[in-house]
Amino acid sequence: MENAFSDRITDVPKSFIREILKVTLDPSIISFAGGLPNRLFFPVKALQKAAYEVFEEEGGDLLQYANSEGYLGLRQFIADRYRQQEGLEIAVEDILITTGSQQGLDLLGKTFLNEGDDLIIEEPGYLGAIQAFAMYRPRFHPVPVSEGGMDLAALGKVLGERRPKLLYTVTNFQNPSGISYSDANRRAVADLVRNSSCLIIQDDPYGDLRFSGTRKVTFKQLLPANTVLLGSFSKTVAPALRLGWLVAPPPVMDKLIIAKQAADLHTNSLAQRILYRYLCDNDLDAHIATIIRQYGKQKNAMIAAIEQYFPASVQHTNPEGGMFLWVSLPAGVSSMTLFEAAIRKKVAFVPGTPFYVDRKDSNTFRLNFSCSEEPTIKEGIKRLGESIRELY
Amino acid sequence: MENAFSDRITDVPKSFIREILKVTLDPSIISFAGGLPNRLFFPVKALQKAAYEVFEEEGGDLLQYANSEGYLGLRQFIADRYRQQEGLEIAVEDILITTGSQQGLDLLGKTFLNEGDDLIIEEPGYLGAIQAFAMYRPRFHPVPVSEGGMDLAALGKVLGERRPKLLYTVTNFQNPSGISYSDANRRAVADLVRNSSCLIIQDDPYGDLRFSGTRKVTFKQLLPANTVLLGSFSKTVAPALRLGWLVAPPPVMDKLIIAKQAADLHTNSLAQRILYRYLCDNDLDAHIATIIRQYGKQKNAMIAAIEQYFPASVQHTNPEGGMFLWVSLPAGVSSMTLFEAAIRKKVAFVPGTPFYVDRKDSNTFRLNFSCSEEPTIKEGIKRLGESIRELY
Repeated sequence: MENAFSDRITDVPKSFIREILKVTLDPSIISFAGGLPNRLFFPVKALQKAAYEVFEEEGGDLLQYANSEGYLGLRQFIADRYRQQEGLEIAVEDILITTGSQQGLDLLGKTFLNEGDDLIIEEPGYLGAIQAFAMYRPRFHPVPVSEGGMDLAALGKVLGERRPKLLYTVTNFQNPSGISYSDANRRAVADLVRNSSCLIIQDDPYGDLRFSGTRKVTFKQLLPANTVLLGSFSKTVAPALRLGWLVAPPPVMDKLIIAKQAADLHTNSLAQRILYRYLCDNDLDAHIATIIRQYGKQKNAMIAAIEQYFPASVQHTNPEGGMFLWVSLPAGVSSMTLFEAAIRKKVAFVPGTPFYVDRKDSNTFRLNFSCSEEPTIKEGIKRLGESIRELY
Repeated sequence: MENAFSDRITDVPKSFIREILKVTLDPSIISFAGGLPNRLFFPVKALQKAAYEVFEEEGGDLLQYANSEGYLGLRQFIADRYRQQEGLEIAVEDILITTGSQQGLDLLGKTFLNEGDDLIIEEPGYLGAIQAFAMYRPRFHPVPVSEGGMDLAALGKVLGERRPKLLYTVTNFQNPSGISYSDANRRAVADLVRNSSCLIIQDDPYGDLRFSGTRKVTFKQLLPANTVLLGSFSKTVAPALRLGWLVAPPPVMDKLIIAKQAADLHTNSLAQRILYRYLCDNDLDAHIATIIRQYGKQKNAMIAAIEQYFPASVQHTNPEGGMFLWVSLPAGVSSMTLFEAAIRKKVAFVPGTPFYVDRKDSNTFRLNFSCSEEPTIKEGIKRLGESIRELY
């Protein structure tokens, strides 16, 4: 059977994170490994009410096949929100509802990438994007990101030497690192990309989860014709709805809709109607404010514990939002080895390796702070500090 | 921008059906063009109750990220149903819940097809399968199907001359033609495939909608290790749930799960829980019996009207189930030309062309009988008969 498979699927290894998460299912382990929003903030009662009402009011129409672009009301809500939040004028026709923003990545890969095409990705970068794009067998060009944004010299070099089709970015509270691009860095990236044929994918699942600092300029504002936006309701409302979206200019949208139809005809329309009803009847910003308050406290508790328990030689990011922070051990210290030591002390994280396209090991790792209470965070980081000291 | 797109998406023309369905949005048109189940049979109240209860009982857990394989209870229900209905022993681990069975087609294409790989498809064949597979740029080998099944000589020829990876079949009440493979034909197809490396995709969205005749042997029974099953709740419960499934042996399932994670992480888990609750609390077979009764009556009304109003030189299939029948005009008469004439008389259908991988026109067309009442069917077929006579 092995010979029967496509090259693309044969080349992709089994998900590293999936294997790690299996280890962390042991309930006695304090896990900073997951990438989940905190279930305490899912609006269960409000969504229950919304579901009841859409069935009541829409009857059979609610359950029929629907259009591939997505429910018009929901797309209008997204357009209105871009106007209010970012001053962006987005036409409803430029919005495609996707089965989570993960599907947006798959559709973009399908629509743009021939085998061997050049693609720029952040290093470290979002694992789900690496997996989605890898299916189309591009040539990945990782460009380092750190506090403040993308390495401009490295970006300039790739743009000068190759003709990348896509530049994938998570400019706000990136997964896995938690870093954000500064305004100056965003402008500099846009200036470098401006005269190329490269399309920027601005993936922003965490942008609304800001606990400090101020909103930054976006690539959509700087390079509107060359930017595709991805968004998601998974971190602000609930992941089980599998509702994300994609904003693209008309010539791109025409192709994306062909890809969408081939992929799953259309996104779950029952979930779209329930979410839309929820958004009409509730104050999303007030809901998000509640999430931010808690995540911000948990992030602060994690930073304080790191500063108390980790050796001074260990570096970490200090995110202004989102769900993750990134730790760098001294060069040469393996986070895979640390992972094994930490599991013995009943604490887990995700080693950095899967967030790079081409490494077998690394000295970095990701910590999630959205799902643990403050005392648990303190205890987990204390154990992790002990594990690190044992390695030295 | 045009040069930026992938070859796969550049080669796929805009959906023909989509353009046709736009024409038929005019409410004064009697449309036999759609491919929709009848909304009168969607169990609105029962799904509303199921939704209310899963929110009530499961709280936040209902709304969190879920596993890529799908909800265990729903997979168990599907396994149990295969045992009861077809005597098939399917392990729960061999079942993957997909975002409609359309996604199953995409995942199979992604998992198996390199560019230029040989793939056998029915002629005429399901348009959604042609679109999904076309994204992976295989070499299509259409094999004719007609009442009774697949053309065995043509199938044998392709299997002898090429090394096809996949054989795509809809053996029960096929879309678009309504034909079913006889038991003898199924056995003969299995015998031809048995010693090849070809995997059979047995797509069965309509199998439960049988109004006459008896259940037939399946490829999964004849060639268990070489068959992938696709199923769907879209025609028996409701399409908006976007819930289908795929049954594959373990080595294939491992790869499909990698493809699934890259595609959308997991299928809408809220919809999975709602459907599972509905299936636990209601009698699916009794519900399906209601649908069958009505579709059978409508099919009979359409056949009677065709025999009354169409010229004797026009041939048609007489399906034992499903939602479609297939009409063949005399050779050389264009169903595209008929479509234009019929629209002037306010009646619509889908011309045969998009169901062939390589034709610009054809003398065939598809009629849907699931969505129209009997008097409407009679009136629409009468007008269509007049349009046909005008062409002669």
